[in-house]
Amino acid sequence: MRVVALAGGVGGARLAEGLQAALPPGDLTVVANTGDDTERHGLLVCPDHDTVLYTLAGIADPVQGWGIAGESWAVMERLGVLGEETWFRLGDRDMATHIVRTARLRAGARLTDASLAIQAALGVPSRILPMTDDAVRTRVLTDEGWLEFQDYFVRLRQLPEVRAVRFDGVDVAEPTPEVLDAVDAAEVVVLCPSNPIVSVAPILAIRGIRDAIRAARGRGAPVAAVSPIVGGKALKGPADRMLASLGHEVSAVGVARLYAGMVDVFVLDAEDAALAPDVEALGMRALVTDTIMTDGDARVRVARETLAALAAIA
Amino acid sequence: MRVVALAGGVGGARLAEGLQAALPPGDLTVVANTGDDTERHGLLVCPDHDTVLYTLAGIADPVQGWGIAGESWAVMERLGVLGEETWFRLGDRDMATHIVRTARLRAGARLTDASLAIQAALGVPSRILPMTDDAVRTRVLTDEGWLEFQDYFVRLRQLPEVRAVRFDGVDVAEPTPEVLDAVDAAEVVVLCPSNPIVSVAPILAIRGIRDAIRAARGRGAPVAAVSPIVGGKALKGPADRMLASLGHEVSAVGVARLYAGMVDVFVLDAEDAALAPDVEALGMRALVTDTIMTDGDARVRVARETLAALAAIA
Repeated sequence: MRVVALAGGVGGARLAEGLQAALPPGDLTVVANTGDDTERHGLLVCPDHDTVLYTLAGIADPVQGWGIAGESWAVMERLGVLGEETWFRLGDRDMATHIVRTARLRAGARLTDASLAIQAALGVPSRILPMTDDAVRTRVLTDEGWLEFQDYFVRLRQLPEVRAVRFDGVDVAEPTPEVLDAVDAAEVVVLCPSNPIVSVAPILAIRGIRDAIRAARGRGAPVAAVSPIVGGKALKGPADRMLASLGHEVSAVGVARLYAGMVDVFVLDAEDAALAPDVEALGMRALVTDTIMTDGDARVRVARETLAALAAIA
Repeated sequence: MRVVALAGGVGGARLAEGLQAALPPGDLTVVANTGDDTERHGLLVCPDHDTVLYTLAGIADPVQGWGIAGESWAVMERLGVLGEETWFRLGDRDMATHIVRTARLRAGARLTDASLAIQAALGVPSRILPMTDDAVRTRVLTDEGWLEFQDYFVRLRQLPEVRAVRFDGVDVAEPTPEVLDAVDAAEVVVLCPSNPIVSVAPILAIRGIRDAIRAARGRGAPVAAVSPIVGGKALKGPADRMLASLGHEVSAVGVARLYAGMVDVFVLDAEDAALAPDVEALGMRALVTDTIMTDGDARVRVARETLAALAAIA
């Protein structure tokens, strides 16, 4: 079953890992948000892509949610000595990813090609496609003004209240042929339990991708979304506070409302079972299950249940 | 005593260390060869500058002659996993130097400014000036054709015989204001015991630098050179084989002949004392001493004796 999954960072990576394990090798294509991308020390860093990359390569740091397990920090320490900012921490092995990616981009490669080459070198059986080869940069409006996303997310630890979000460059960003082909060939599409506002929304804000997903639904390829909000709280990150400050309901229903009209199956946690009727009132089927994906078994189970629900209506 | 030293890698760095220790802080300016510079993994690496840098910062690897003492290799290993060539080995801490330098260049800085900032961050009391901010690249002709310098030097371990040498870009390379000012202000100039053909010659091949040294001599600032050939052999590197294959005498006299007309004092090793008359016949004073600079004391002693010989004729 050819599956396209739209993902941001940790939550998306976890479901992607489950999908990869549940599917034959090569059947999974992840479209990764690039709105979080940032240039650090002259190197292009793609946090969402790389979290998915390291997770699908089986080398992700299981504790911190980003980077590679067992990292060392020699380069970062020395960068600090040399006067560079060090609040965005990059491990030595992780640094090699950014060095290679940047070198290939400078040599003229597309971000997609550079990313696919790195994935192949790490033995990832799935494809992780940047949503676009063009620069899209998420910015958030706080009481300190418009901030670059990582400035808000890492340096300020998501403490400022977010008043507005914008995706610079999204109006002119083109989806890649690889993304469009993957969606065209998809039998099902899954919106991973990533932050709907700053992880999934940038992907859907690229007009060609939203249109392609609509077309896929039109030819009978259903779409599922898995709620990143459980019991009124984000499993990780600031999605709950962001939903609140932007005027949305902080619940699985609040997320479902954002996806209304483009999703067929909405997966919500057993803790939120009482919300299922409200979700179904939005025109989606509600799949209630344990969505907490702390271990590999849980990830595969959530993936299988989601795929089964989609297959049932395909 | 304001001293300008022209230097390549290890031998040059050792004498520069002696000069730095023998002089008041700030009196030493090293002009470093940039013909060996190379782009690795998208990063600009300046081997001669960095060998001098790490030596003058007191952090050089004392065994291998390049890089930083106590290095780790996590980035390099991972670069290999990602499909990059790994024959030019760069340690993790060393990599930070190249990352920072490249980032500042991409942001618009001159190589000189990027280099001075790194030196300051590492607490180097001297200045190490790239000979030019323009790209000059040494290439050597071997039976395999024209090779990039590091291809010959590192990958092929200097095994091919060198039939010719050229410095691409040197005709249009401009000396920096900093180099010209340093030579203009110099009370003495020292050609370090670096390879005369591929370390010192590229610096002298920049017309403005050669002219500035000539002008310095004209106003009474004498020039010394220290032989990198002792007992007919290079202390390090391929200078001896290069002299031979390019038709020069492989001896201190052969080196002195290359510098004839621009040097006042030629320092040769006690082992070569018998060659002193031949050196003096070239119009230079010969200073015979123990030039093997294995430890810090020897480096300072050679520096002091060289400076004393220059002061005697200044």
